[in-house]
Amino acid sequence: MSGNSFGTLFCVTSFGESHGPAYGGVVDGCPPGLELTAADLQRELDRRKPGSSRHVTQRRESDAVEILSGVYEGRTTGTAIGFLVRNEDQRSKDYAAIAEKFRPGHADYTYWQKYGIRDPRGGGRASARETLVRVAAGAIAKKWLRERYGVVVRGYLAQLGPKRIALRDWQAVDANPFFAPDPAIVPELEAFLDDLRARGDSCGARVNAIASGVPVGWGEPVYGRLDADIASALMGINAVKGVEIGAGFAAVEQRGSEHGDEMTPAGFLSNHNGGVLGGISTGQDITVSVALKPTSSIRLPRRTIDVHGRATTVQTTGRHDPCVGIRATPIVEAMLACVLMDHALRQRAQCGDVNPPTAPLAGAAS
Amino acid sequence: MSGNSFGTLFCVTSFGESHGPAYGGVVDGCPPGLELTAADLQRELDRRKPGSSRHVTQRRESDAVEILSGVYEGRTTGTAIGFLVRNEDQRSKDYAAIAEKFRPGHADYTYWQKYGIRDPRGGGRASARETLVRVAAGAIAKKWLRERYGVVVRGYLAQLGPKRIALRDWQAVDANPFFAPDPAIVPELEAFLDDLRARGDSCGARVNAIASGVPVGWGEPVYGRLDADIASALMGINAVKGVEIGAGFAAVEQRGSEHGDEMTPAGFLSNHNGGVLGGISTGQDITVSVALKPTSSIRLPRRTIDVHGRATTVQTTGRHDPCVGIRATPIVEAMLACVLMDHALRQRAQCGDVNPPTAPLAGAAS
Amino acid sequence: MSGNSFGTLFCVTSFGESHGPAYGGVVDGCPPGLELTAADLQRELDRRKPGSSRHVTQRRESDAVEILSGVYEGRTTGTAIGFLVRNEDQRSKDYAAIAEKFRPGHADYTYWQKYGIRDPRGGGRASARETLVRVAAGAIAKKWLRERYGVVVRGYLAQLGPKRIALRDWQAVDANPFFAPDPAIVPELEAFLDDLRARGDSCGARVNAIASGVPVGWGEPVYGRLDADIASALMGINAVKGVEIGAGFAAVEQRGSEHGDEMTPAGFLSNHNGGVLGGISTGQDITVSVALKPTSSIRLPRRTIDVHGRATTVQTTGRHDPCVGIRATPIVEAMLACVLMDHALRQRAQCGDVNPPTAPLAGAAS
Amino acid sequence: MSGNSFGTLFCVTSFGESHGPAYGGVVDGCPPGLELTAADLQRELDRRKPGSSRHVTQRRESDAVEILSGVYEGRTTGTAIGFLVRNEDQRSKDYAAIAEKFRPGHADYTYWQKYGIRDPRGGGRASARETLVRVAAGAIAKKWLRERYGVVVRGYLAQLGPKRIALRDWQAVDANPFFAPDPAIVPELEAFLDDLRARGDSCGARVNAIASGVPVGWGEPVYGRLDADIASALMGINAVKGVEIGAGFAAVEQRGSEHGDEMTPAGFLSNHNGGVLGGISTGQDITVSVALKPTSSIRLPRRTIDVHGRATTVQTTGRHDPCVGIRATPIVEAMLACVLMDHALRQRAQCGDVNPPTAPLAGAAS
Repeated sequence: MSGNSFGTLFCVTSFGESHGPAYGGVVDGCPPGLELTAADLQRELDRRKPGSSRHVTQRRESDAVEILSGVYEGRTTGTAIGFLVRNEDQRSKDYAAIAEKFRPGHADYTYWQKYGIRDPRGGGRASARETLVRVAAGAIAKKWLRERYGVVVRGYLAQLGPKRIALRDWQAVDANPFFAPDPAIVPELEAFLDDLRARGDSCGARVNAIASGVPVGWGEPVYGRLDADIASALMGINAVKGVEIGAGFAAVEQRGSEHGDEMTPAGFLSNHNGGVLGGISTGQDITVSVALKPTSSIRLPRRTIDVHGRATTVQTTGRHDPCVGIRATPIVEAMLACVLMDHALRQRAQCGDVNPPTAPLAGAAS
Repeated sequence: MSGNSFGTLFCVTSFGESHGPAYGGVVDGCPPGLELTAADLQRELDRRKPGSSRHVTQRRESDAVEILSGVYEGRTTGTAIGFLVRNEDQRSKDYAAIAEKFRPGHADYTYWQKYGIRDPRGGGRASARETLVRVAAGAIAKKWLRERYGVVVRGYLAQLGPKRIALRDWQAVDANPFFAPDPAIVPELEAFLDDLRARGDSCGARVNAIASGVPVGWGEPVYGRLDADIASALMGINAVKGVEIGAGFAAVEQRGSEHGDEMTPAGFLSNHNGGVLGGISTGQDITVSVALKPTSSIRLPRRTIDVHGRATTVQTTGRHDPCVGIRATPIVEAMLACVLMDHALRQRAQCGDVNPPTAPLAGAAS
Repeated sequence: MSGNSFGTLFCVTSFGESHGPAYGGVVDGCPPGLELTAADLQRELDRRKPGSSRHVTQRRESDAVEILSGVYEGRTTGTAIGFLVRNEDQRSKDYAAIAEKFRPGHADYTYWQKYGIRDPRGGGRASARETLVRVAAGAIAKKWLRERYGVVVRGYLAQLGPKRIALRDWQAVDANPFFAPDPAIVPELEAFLDDLRARGDSCGARVNAIASGVPVGWGEPVYGRLDADIASALMGINAVKGVEIGAGFAAVEQRGSEHGDEMTPAGFLSNHNGGVLGGISTGQDITVSVALKPTSSIRLPRRTIDVHGRATTVQTTGRHDPCVGIRATPIVEAMLACVLMDHALRQRAQCGDVNPPTAPLAGAAS
Repeated sequence: MSGNSFGTLFCVTSFGESHGPAYGGVVDGCPPGLELTAADLQRELDRRKPGSSRHVTQRRESDAVEILSGVYEGRTTGTAIGFLVRNEDQRSKDYAAIAEKFRPGHADYTYWQKYGIRDPRGGGRASARETLVRVAAGAIAKKWLRERYGVVVRGYLAQLGPKRIALRDWQAVDANPFFAPDPAIVPELEAFLDDLRARGDSCGARVNAIASGVPVGWGEPVYGRLDADIASALMGINAVKGVEIGAGFAAVEQRGSEHGDEMTPAGFLSNHNGGVLGGISTGQDITVSVALKPTSSIRLPRRTIDVHGRATTVQTTGRHDPCVGIRATPIVEAMLACVLMDHALRQRAQCGDVNPPTAPLAGAAS
């Protein structure tokens, strides 16, 4: 399988470029009988949409999605679900100035050298706009997981540059343009971003996500591990440079007597493992955290080379998010949901006849 | 594909349990004509072998590997390479006491609940002893990468519990039982581990690895990204809870003007991206870092439940590494090498006719 | 991977239903730099198009294809090629009468029982109209194979019901609505079909295809064999019930002294093996033949049951081909081309460094 | 995935060469809890074993199989099942005479040209001895299918060269060395083979197989079709040149009014479709037929070239089956069983929540 599909049984295939006619995707393997309309996808796409605040790219896209197959009379039929989002606001002229140069930190250089050809308009295939396909696919996964297993997948912005954001209020997440789980910190984030934008610079971010209600037993050990597949899905999001599950890098300094989550008949007493042991879900919350690097397209001048290998500088004046992490929360949720759904299906394929022989334990409070 | 194989074109399949008769693996897709003998695999296996110092499990295994196929007159034939390592020192009685209990932080509970049956002897399939298959496969990948492309994959212990270890001397890495790249710190590490072992506790670790000489252009964008596949391979190693590429989580607090690696005709000026942009190698060093959690099998008593769901405590008195990270360096190298080889093959499949149109840039000093 | 994708490196994903809004596909893994426009796909789609003669379904579809991604300034970029064909002439009312009944020999019954739901309009996902996705993907494969390796993939109708058709003239194939390679037999075929249609019945067919110019060495032995993948691709075409390679079933009655293709420095002396030995191409023509069953939707009344399990009869009065084999030639060519392209890529991945050590032999005249 | 594995969820990986130390395999994805011992595999291996009559190769192999993993206390654990069969009787000297020549009809030439290297001893990886891996894997699939679903997979020799063999008595199949379902014809077959062997020639064969008890709904439509996967599995058996399902090539001359299997509440009235419609099982018997070409290693002299491209002749005097079809029956059964088990798992993954909404129909008498 080449690089534009992922998943074993719940399989997502993606196509499209930033300034081409459209993005689209195919979701294969969804069980039949799920109630599904374009509105289910649209709701999640709208969360990721550009132009929703002054802090993100001002590109104007309705991101209206059309379902082309796989749904009959409002329910999935078990066949491939194709969907399409037309691009509307492609100001390709913005990119003429950089078509012959490579932006530092951007995929311009690697696409060019790998393929010997690239679509320079808006980053072409490397544009983060591709993540709308993931979000649409994730909407299907989230819905099925919730209806079939009661699994809820939620994320939030945990850090914006140097600003750490505490998880105080899940309700706040969708009520501000940053997916910040603390309404009190929003003005501070806005001021920080206004300053950053004025300087022509960008910053990194951290996004956390939690999947609650995952039953014990999802994930295959050794190489098809749930944690390995989650890591792949999250590291594969544009700009992600680090992935943690559970305690993550804090585990380096933990002792075994602290890290190993004790169990009692009343449930687990902690969740340092982030809901995965031996590559298999424990029944606790799956907790993940990703690091997103700063946007590479910035207005500050940077040293680079052109396609002829000559020294030059580049400034990017197009419409860009000063922090790709701001809109990343729905994407992280979507990728996590797709992996979980894939493993839900894989689990019942192999172990559909197994009932957990010991009464499953409750999770620790997260 | 189920959970015991990984890789698309360079594909590794693994089998075996800690106290079963043997471990074995099948490496599929290796190009023909590579000189290969069992000694090539043995050299790497010996680096990972138990019993090599008082700081790791005292299980006595020669880990002697036999190549069963795919090599004719000292060269690979292009067919599947099967290999086998017999288990020798299986003291299954050590595990009788814990067969009915779940060790906190261990896969005991999840295997049991997923499959309704498990081999409790030595962790069964969940034992880190399975990593010998990865190391053997990685030995093939490392050799081919070096001979065909000049790629060198090296790793080292970067942190042991609270002890950070600076990269001072690559030569030191294989000259101490910790793969520490600084001989001066070894006595300190030994004292720390002796104390830890005396307390019956365990600690976490951080292992770094670097692949040098990787050409620009390996990795497929979007979902088959080189970084995503690396993340999957590394998070899939037993006990790993976090993976970073390049700046990793430090990217969260970086500005775009700092993070994006500038380019000049003389080469890249930094390597915050860790050698991957847009999922494709840049030609710089690939730099990765993983967090390993503390060993879950410890002598200190821990609260847990038994298979009947009743409260109990567990102490693990068998032979265990007090820090799984100590022997993880060859495993991290092996997994990184396998992913790179897979992508080397994928690259020449699709882009075998492409020459990078711009003279490839030199990397920054790492 | 679920059921709507095929291919390992040249990977085709398909979606769409007969009376939904559109069909579409994603071709992943195409090398960069291939000149490609919608016209390249359209040419092949037009060969398969309905309504082109009175002998096939009178459904009126322009089958106009739009390329949505993966092509920039007329050349492939190496990223996923998405394409779309809107459905235009969906007379769903034709199907109301049969929505609650199962047509004998049709997938109505199996979709219904497998998924618990089906789109009954025009066969839904089971409609042979889906083959347009294969034909579009095959157009890309055919073009690349021809330009890169000089491989030519051609097919023809070899038998229509009882009428055997000799290969007399390749030029004739595209000059009649049956893809018959003998212009003299066309009036006889027309009379036969007129009579069949008047009776309300349908007939089977045999289609042959040949790939010329395939180099020695494509195909992986044992399970990823070229012949196995061809068999899968061809048996997977709607209505196909048998696949032969080379001598096919005639090999049952051959002796080894007759079947084994002798070699001389001037080339092979025969081609009973159909260009594949041990799962690997020999450099001779790849010759295949498929059996297509008669169309199951016929006007003659047939005994069946309804969705409640009650006895009933069914007559299908919609627009149907009296012989699905008539339009199958471009589909067989397309599937064969896709498999060959996949293996061309796989071959250079693993064996890109190998030159055939013996001067490759010429093929026997086919 | 490279060429030595097959199956999506029930995945078989194979390694070994005819004159190497051993053959082995890994079966991944088997559900936990299946009672399994080496004897289960041995029983099927003994059916395929060489040296069992004067009509097959006289190579002496016990083909004793050892299970190395995946089974604990007599039951599968859900982890990878590794198994090994040591080679014992490798008379490599037999092959010295042909190491530099290519046998017509054999994979000698294609391996050599593809890989630039080959193991000439006994055909190396191309030897039909590899099929023991398939038979061992198939033994697991057959057992699980029978115990979990009541599916029975059986095959028989339907034709030996010109001799057609009627299905008169299933009990006879395992009571003669040909798997002939008619004891009366056995003397005739023996005389035919004795004569053939005396002439130094070989012949082709046809093998049929039937899977009974397969529920409605297995198989994915469009590309992951049950029939396509069966065709791949069967065409991938050494020497197979043709595959039929149901009516097969006879469908070419059938009318729709004859071919389409009518349904009544009492069941299907015929089974021309061979138990598959639209790529999905109907609940009728799955009926398949394969053509096997004559053995290419014969004693009669044949024109060929040597590795330097020079004209020469070759006679094969080693130990060979005069008809590979004689021992093919267990292999065909095994491959069919593996495909069915894979689809059983895939079906319950996606459609585990679906009950066939209409009472499933009984099959027609086969």
